Amino acid sequence: MSVRPCLFVVLAAGKGTRMKSSLPKVLHKVAGQSMLAHVLTTASRIEGGTIAVVAGPQMDAVATEAVRVVPGARIFEQSAQLGTADAVLAAKPALDEQDGGDVVVLFADTPLVRGEVIERLRAALDSGANIAVLGFRPKDPTGYGRLLIDDRGALTGIREEQDATAAERAIGLCNSGVMAFRVPRLSELLSRIGSANAKGEYYLTDAIEIARQQGLKATVVECDESDVLGVNTREQLAVAEGIWQARARSAFMRDGVTMVAPETVWLNFDTRIASDVSIEPNVIFGAGVTVEEGAQILGFCHIEGATIGKGARIGPFARFRPGARIGANVHIGNFVEVKNVTLGEGAKANHLSYLGDGSVGAGANIGAGTIFCNYDGYNKEKTEIGDGAFIGSNTSLVAPVKIGAGAYIGSGSVITKDVSPGALAIERSAQEERPGWAEKFRAVMSRRKAAQKR
Amino acid sequence: MSVRPCLFVVLAAGKGTRMKSSLPKVLHKVAGQSMLAHVLTTASRIEGGTIAVVAGPQMDAVATEAVRVVPGARIFEQSAQLGTADAVLAAKPALDEQDGGDVVVLFADTPLVRGEVIERLRAALDSGANIAVLGFRPKDPTGYGRLLIDDRGALTGIREEQDATAAERAIGLCNSGVMAFRVPRLSELLSRIGSANAKGEYYLTDAIEIARQQGLKATVVECDESDVLGVNTREQLAVAEGIWQARARSAFMRDGVTMVAPETVWLNFDTRIASDVSIEPNVIFGAGVTVEEGAQILGFCHIEGATIGKGARIGPFARFRPGARIGANVHIGNFVEVKNVTLGEGAKANHLSYLGDGSVGAGANIGAGTIFCNYDGYNKEKTEIGDGAFIGSNTSLVAPVKIGAGAYIGSGSVITKDVSPGALAIERSAQEERPGWAEKFRAVMSRRKAAQKR
Amino acid sequence: MSVRPCLFVVLAAGKGTRMKSSLPKVLHKVAGQSMLAHVLTTASRIEGGTIAVVAGPQMDAVATEAVRVVPGARIFEQSAQLGTADAVLAAKPALDEQDGGDVVVLFADTPLVRGEVIERLRAALDSGANIAVLGFRPKDPTGYGRLLIDDRGALTGIREEQDATAAERAIGLCNSGVMAFRVPRLSELLSRIGSANAKGEYYLTDAIEIARQQGLKATVVECDESDVLGVNTREQLAVAEGIWQARARSAFMRDGVTMVAPETVWLNFDTRIASDVSIEPNVIFGAGVTVEEGAQILGFCHIEGATIGKGARIGPFARFRPGARIGANVHIGNFVEVKNVTLGEGAKANHLSYLGDGSVGAGANIGAGTIFCNYDGYNKEKTEIGDGAFIGSNTSLVAPVKIGAGAYIGSGSVITKDVSPGALAIERSAQEERPGWAEKFRAVMSRRKAAQKR
Repeated sequence: MSVRPCLFVVLAAGKGTRMKSSLPKVLHKVAGQSMLAHVLTTASRIEGGTIAVVAGPQMDAVATEAVRVVPGARIFEQSAQLGTADAVLAAKPALDEQDGGDVVVLFADTPLVRGEVIERLRAALDSGANIAVLGFRPKDPTGYGRLLIDDRGALTGIREEQDATAAERAIGLCNSGVMAFRVPRLSELLSRIGSANAKGEYYLTDAIEIARQQGLKATVVECDESDVLGVNTREQLAVAEGIWQARARSAFMRDGVTMVAPETVWLNFDTRIASDVSIEPNVIFGAGVTVEEGAQILGFCHIEGATIGKGARIGPFARFRPGARIGANVHIGNFVEVKNVTLGEGAKANHLSYLGDGSVGAGANIGAGTIFCNYDGYNKEKTEIGDGAFIGSNTSLVAPVKIGAGAYIGSGSVITKDVSPGALAIERSAQEERPGWAEKFRAVMSRRKAAQKR
Repeated sequence: MSVRPCLFVVLAAGKGTRMKSSLPKVLHKVAGQSMLAHVLTTASRIEGGTIAVVAGPQMDAVATEAVRVVPGARIFEQSAQLGTADAVLAAKPALDEQDGGDVVVLFADTPLVRGEVIERLRAALDSGANIAVLGFRPKDPTGYGRLLIDDRGALTGIREEQDATAAERAIGLCNSGVMAFRVPRLSELLSRIGSANAKGEYYLTDAIEIARQQGLKATVVECDESDVLGVNTREQLAVAEGIWQARARSAFMRDGVTMVAPETVWLNFDTRIASDVSIEPNVIFGAGVTVEEGAQILGFCHIEGATIGKGARIGPFARFRPGARIGANVHIGNFVEVKNVTLGEGAKANHLSYLGDGSVGAGANIGAGTIFCNYDGYNKEKTEIGDGAFIGSNTSLVAPVKIGAGAYIGSGSVITKDVSPGALAIERSAQEERPGWAEKFRAVMSRRKAAQKR
Repeated sequence: MSVRPCLFVVLAAGKGTRMKSSLPKVLHKVAGQSMLAHVLTTASRIEGGTIAVVAGPQMDAVATEAVRVVPGARIFEQSAQLGTADAVLAAKPALDEQDGGDVVVLFADTPLVRGEVIERLRAALDSGANIAVLGFRPKDPTGYGRLLIDDRGALTGIREEQDATAAERAIGLCNSGVMAFRVPRLSELLSRIGSANAKGEYYLTDAIEIARQQGLKATVVECDESDVLGVNTREQLAVAEGIWQARARSAFMRDGVTMVAPETVWLNFDTRIASDVSIEPNVIFGAGVTVEEGAQILGFCHIEGATIGKGARIGPFARFRPGARIGANVHIGNFVEVKNVTLGEGAKANHLSYLGDGSVGAGANIGAGTIFCNYDGYNKEKTEIGDGAFIGSNTSLVAPVKIGAGAYIGSGSVITKDVSPGALAIERSAQEERPGWAEKFRAVMSRRKAAQKR
């Protein structure tokens, strides 16, 4: 079966003043990815799709983000905010090229619409409709446009709430704004939409009546409210984040991931977790994380840019930054940060350490309080630790430095020169004791404290 | 328009046995502040108000807290718990001074009542009522007194559940207990309330019928259930905390603060956060925190007594205690604690450090594992670090000590003497190596382990 | 009154393929304890009970867990999964020994059933029923078998949804599967159950009709839906965990524990917390924790295998592992890990420390960044610190080592030899300064950086 081409017109020109932000609304993030990118990614995964993004003036950042996500996306500018029909017409060149093919209008501030929902919308076109509108049944329909359906199930119009009769207000089926068209000369049809309404705007919804006057058919496809949640405020952004997270957590649990308290695990749009991984409460995944089978992630971990190997045990209180490559069965314990370091199979760093830039060999043991001194104020240098090496507690490894396989570092040493395999290296003075010093010190200090009080 | 005076009688004498606590109930905290203080603060913000607090016997802590929050508050003692009317009459001297003016009865264990709700209650007095009762419609009215309304909307009585007919039980409008009076000789009216009921207590609600017999008018003002949540158990305390937090989070989001997971951000009653601040999941704000515009707070931070400057990046796993003054664009990273230290613009302390007492100059870099040794068992001393200084990793700075601007400290040093600007300071022994030592050590230990097993 | 004996037949043979796990389903954990152990523990607390567990073939781990929890449990194998009646009959020897006594069938994947619910089920037998079925009213009964009740309240049958008429589907009362029997020759009755149904399985529910044909009486006992939540997926496991946690948190709050945000406190099945303990948001309790009166636990703590004494102040960001014995009024601060260490009254370890294996005397002060170097790659050795000792910041204590009472350790020292009481011990080189070095270094590095860019 040949794939039918489809143009996605993604409306991204809204200023989003209610966000109270200097960032354009559609660049605010859900699951670590801009809302615009969510919509573009969903659209770009549909076979045969091409993408047009309609941005407002002075929204270079929106165009840049769109092209980053979908390099082939075409950007159009809507010079003034004159309504959704006007916004779609900003992409007229793309509409006209597509003539008679499918056009789906999506909203960049409606980030949760799923590909399967869009497919159902297009299926309605395959079943004979010229226009298919995505409808939903919110708990409270107040404020939404209502979808008017005739006896045969055809969509006859969309009534804005302020214009609705009491009977129409009782309708629970509401307009999401998302629409699919298979209409010859669509741009011509849209250009007939007028602005004779309270706000003086050109509404895409008016296309229904015009189309019906031309003998075209319109229909409704229903979806879940969560698919069409529009984000206008930071509260709604948080709601969208919550829905995205709940979906993603469920999907991972169905695939065999244990989460003790799923509501406390925050996933990123690109997180990958294998089966039989178990995750304690309170874990945050940033961008670029892969967790392999059977790994255990304890509570209070903040993980970004990391791969975690099979059977590894991580946390609690572990912090991974980009380039943390954690081998199989590695143990990373509490208050340990790893950045741009590869740890070989079975290596351990269990307490209060900073491992930045370098490598740790298989089976090596990194004592509590170890620091890779990777930065001199100008350059970042590497610490390379061989297989089976033992780094005593509270060691400072001043990079660039190499610790040979099986070498042993005495606790508290500052290591600035390479250490040979199998050797002991130590940097330490003699321990001195002054008998009775502490007793005298306390006597003096106590007397002073007493004197101060007088 | 002149401000009409108002006496707030805040009832705070309840023992709260169901809290199972040695602390008087009304001193239990919501958002870091006692319930009593919440109510007093709300009342004290209403223009023209004076405050009387009714405490039980042996409740000095309640009186102390009341006067701490509202220095002009007058404290009255209710010697025995004989009901709400008796409690209000404990403040008879204040009632009599206020004669004919407004009197509003509030409950110190109902901490979420908002000023706007109290204003609406007083507005009902301005509209001609002599008594206005705050009513609400709970999901489940079981157990509450029902408000009886006549055809004209007047309040005719309050019926306790045990005395209610089936028809009265079907009433959804319930009594919150909060009441406003504009009644001449109020104390006289209240003293006519009897105790001929099951519990033998004097109920303030009986004032309605007595007032109506005198030809006075009573009315109801409705509010949201959350405004009148009474706290009798620690579970209800947690519910009140949750409602307070939800309100505060929403208010911040409306003002332009991004919270990825608002339900995991805990605010304090005095937290201040500017717009375009973004907050990751799991951040706890203690008392006295101000966050300036554009700052980013990553997950798992515990912040108290701190100011965080514009564009600063904090966490994850940062801990601020009182006196942490974080300048603009400062970076404080993971497992770093700051207490009573001022950090200049652009300074960085990214890993595993304790900065206690002192100052860090603009642009200075504090290496991983740095400790300000501020305490000798008796005194807390200061560490002062100049602009642009570079503190190598794992350094101990033994206060009092000054590091000059642009100075450089070698990793792992213990610095006990001041360092000149632009100088390098280092405290370190020579690194020694014993070739083959680790190999021999392992051979010996392995042999021993094997011997132990035999 | 003599205790009537009761046989609990716990069905644990389900494979749980929807868990997508290599672990048998009933060994997945809720609150740190396997679901099987939850059910066995509940049953074993009922006086007069004996326990039979029905496991599948090759489920040694299930048998091992059962016997670990209830040493006297008898294990039976159901060789093929032929339905619940077949499963119960796998325990025929136990049924026959119990002849005429009570038999209660429980499910190891239904971990939340409470003892009081089982007692009510048995009370129905005392009231004359031969079979009592535990029923519940789910929000959505779709998919459940419906309980058919006659005019006199007797249970007449259980109708699977696919066989139900429209009228029967309208019944809200559903079958939990849990059943109690007081039937002579129960195994004989069960063996008359056939498998002439769609799945070809032997359903225990068919026992109702057979029993009624014999003139026996059946009845229903209703319980809350949460008691009979069955776990077939990891999502349901998380739901069960959530219900368990909510129950446990409420119980602690009723007993006088304050939780600011109870939904963020994760308890273990064996956690013990005394009254007037206060717990901030985000605390995870692992196995084996006891917290004594008045202790304060700040946010972000991960606590396992620890006793926390009266009035102690813990966290934020504290990590306790097995053997952490925290005395009264001890302070353990942020980024501090304690494992197998006893701390005497009033001792303090407030910052960035690892205390592993040993003891800390009363009133001792452990400076920031202190590390107990307890491991040499082969053995774990002890660090013993006397009463009132002062350990300077960034100290490494290389075990085995003893620090005498009242001794004082200079900051940054590596202590390898015992220190006498009242003495000062220090390990340190002389601080050296190279004037102007940092300035020159920066000039060189800046030049290089500039050259690289060209």
